Amino acid sequence: MVVKLWCRTSLISSTACIALSSHSNRSFFNLPTPQLRSRAQGLILVNHTCGFLGSGRLGQVRTECYLNRRRSSMMSSPPSAASSPDKQAEQVDRLLSGKNDDHGGVIVELTNEPVDPSLFATLLKASISQWRQQGKRGVWIKLPIELANLVEPAIKEGFYYHHAEPKYLMLVCWLPATTNTLPANATHRVGIGAFVMNAKNEVLVVQEKSGRFRGTGVWKFPTGVVDEGEDICDAAVREVKEETGIDATFVEILAFRQSHKSFFEKSDLFFVCMLQPSSFDIQIQEQEIEAAQWMPYEEYVSQPFIQQHEMLKQIAAVCSAKILGKYSGFSPVETVTGFSEKKSYLYLNKNANGDESS
Amino acid sequence: MVVKLWCRTSLISSTACIALSSHSNRSFFNLPTPQLRSRAQGLILVNHTCGFLGSGRLGQVRTECYLNRRRSSMMSSPPSAASSPDKQAEQVDRLLSGKNDDHGGVIVELTNEPVDPSLFATLLKASISQWRQQGKRGVWIKLPIELANLVEPAIKEGFYYHHAEPKYLMLVCWLPATTNTLPANATHRVGIGAFVMNAKNEVLVVQEKSGRFRGTGVWKFPTGVVDEGEDICDAAVREVKEETGIDATFVEILAFRQSHKSFFEKSDLFFVCMLQPSSFDIQIQEQEIEAAQWMPYEEYVSQPFIQQHEMLKQIAAVCSAKILGKYSGFSPVETVTGFSEKKSYLYLNKNANGDESS
Repeated sequence: MVVKLWCRTSLISSTACIALSSHSNRSFFNLPTPQLRSRAQGLILVNHTCGFLGSGRLGQVRTECYLNRRRSSMMSSPPSAASSPDKQAEQVDRLLSGKNDDHGGVIVELTNEPVDPSLFATLLKASISQWRQQGKRGVWIKLPIELANLVEPAIKEGFYYHHAEPKYLMLVCWLPATTNTLPANATHRVGIGAFVMNAKNEVLVVQEKSGRFRGTGVWKFPTGVVDEGEDICDAAVREVKEETGIDATFVEILAFRQSHKSFFEKSDLFFVCMLQPSSFDIQIQEQEIEAAQWMPYEEYVSQPFIQQHEMLKQIAAVCSAKILGKYSGFSPVETVTGFSEKKSYLYLNKNANGDESS
Repeated sequence: MVVKLWCRTSLISSTACIALSSHSNRSFFNLPTPQLRSRAQGLILVNHTCGFLGSGRLGQVRTECYLNRRRSSMMSSPPSAASSPDKQAEQVDRLLSGKNDDHGGVIVELTNEPVDPSLFATLLKASISQWRQQGKRGVWIKLPIELANLVEPAIKEGFYYHHAEPKYLMLVCWLPATTNTLPANATHRVGIGAFVMNAKNEVLVVQEKSGRFRGTGVWKFPTGVVDEGEDICDAAVREVKEETGIDATFVEILAFRQSHKSFFEKSDLFFVCMLQPSSFDIQIQEQEIEAAQWMPYEEYVSQPFIQQHEMLKQIAAVCSAKILGKYSGFSPVETVTGFSEKKSYLYLNKNANGDESS
């Protein structure tokens, strides 16, 4: 059994020293027993961040300790360092690593190194006690799927599910007695349909290999899902390129539909986008697309399925008005979002006088 | 120890009998040991649904078996029924309950009754084997937060996280060798800002008790988050009523902004909505709102914060154009969504000729 221990304390001010010294008051914490400590595997990063001057950047003190114990088949028998713990080793096992967020909370992000659930429970209990002392609000724990064994102990300490993605689960706990102001989870999936017309009034249409339209013979606009972090206008261009090989530039959003319970309790926003093609040779994506073609617009509209499907008929009416220069949708305008100076798009009717001029 | 056992088999056709009989071929399944079976607690619903004529409604056979064992402090010692199992009892414990979805998959929804993780793992293994035989595609498991102890065994059988809400976790597994076509998770949170103006060209503005604008002295439009399953137009009316007590009717969406990484990796869609007020006496929501008032529109626009904030300035320009009758946004039009005949809203520019007439 080899124990490697490395501690670094960066003190930013003398006040920080005082704040740090309060950490050694053992009565504040539910310390793990040597036996529990001995069951730690892999790498544990303990990062004390005390927001003793508020949640700003000034006045923070960070103590980072790395403990790397080689795995042993005798995990339940205490290693020598744990059976005669020194002060540093105690501090190492006492708290979970966390970093402050911008809302007075803490984010704990675990790597996928194995962690013993009992040890985790003990660390979490002690950490919650510490965070309460510090007046922390929301505590987030991001658990990689490899640590599914830590879900149960976190729930037992009062955490609940916030959101999940294929490779991780985000748990959260609201510490104050005040109203929970944590952000709501994502509620909508976003999709696009692309209206792409060439100079011969032919519209780009596809038949899909799977999905609801499979085998119906219906020719439809290329459609797709907007990826996480992707702009709607970029998604429309990407989907057209992927499904048909056609290069196109985004013109505007003609309309959108909001629907509910599209999968389980989640809602759906579907944006009908107009694109201007800049290439014309179709190369279909074999995996998803059965066939694609440039079809005379009137032929597309007159398909019985379009005429019988209320929403598709309404969308066709919008497209027809657009073709005649009698419709204005929303165009993307670059903007800066909120306080973060991040670039994003504001979609609005650029024809502010109400006339169609583009 | 009391064992209640009830079995019902509804046979729709003679073909169904043949399909059902194949279930009794034990070699297909990894049967649980009597000891594992004995650890079942609460109610287990086993629902065999064989899609042997495809995923349609015809030709299905359902076998539902309910097993209710009273809890015992001797859970690890086999109850009499399990120690001398008859064929029915074996069948009961063999598979998880599931119902078919519309896409060739199965949805398993567990109640919050405790289930032993080892038993669950065994049932899941056997069920997966069965679903593979049946050519099932996506298998969904909805685990209430009370059953966090079943997350790990599900992951070990190849499931991954799809989405989560405070009270449950949705796990999923794609069984075929073909490309995974399961729906993407929700990626966007949806919010609204409400532009509400009275006949005196005064705009309804608030100061919030929390959030980024807290203590800045900035007067802003009422804003809020669109709830799961809520229409954007309804959310705008609700938020205005909640925050200020003002009744209003929805007019149109003037613009919207898409931004990314608004919380963790999730994106945000923020819709600027115009509403027509029908009441004028303000009653603020004490919990969220510090103050609210009808403010002359020019005074709102001339606030330094609005003038310095690119997006707010752009939105103010849109509102100004709207006041002058020189702007068309998107109005909600009722439509029927997709194949399900559900009502939903299509938002489009109703002024199809490009002129502002509303």
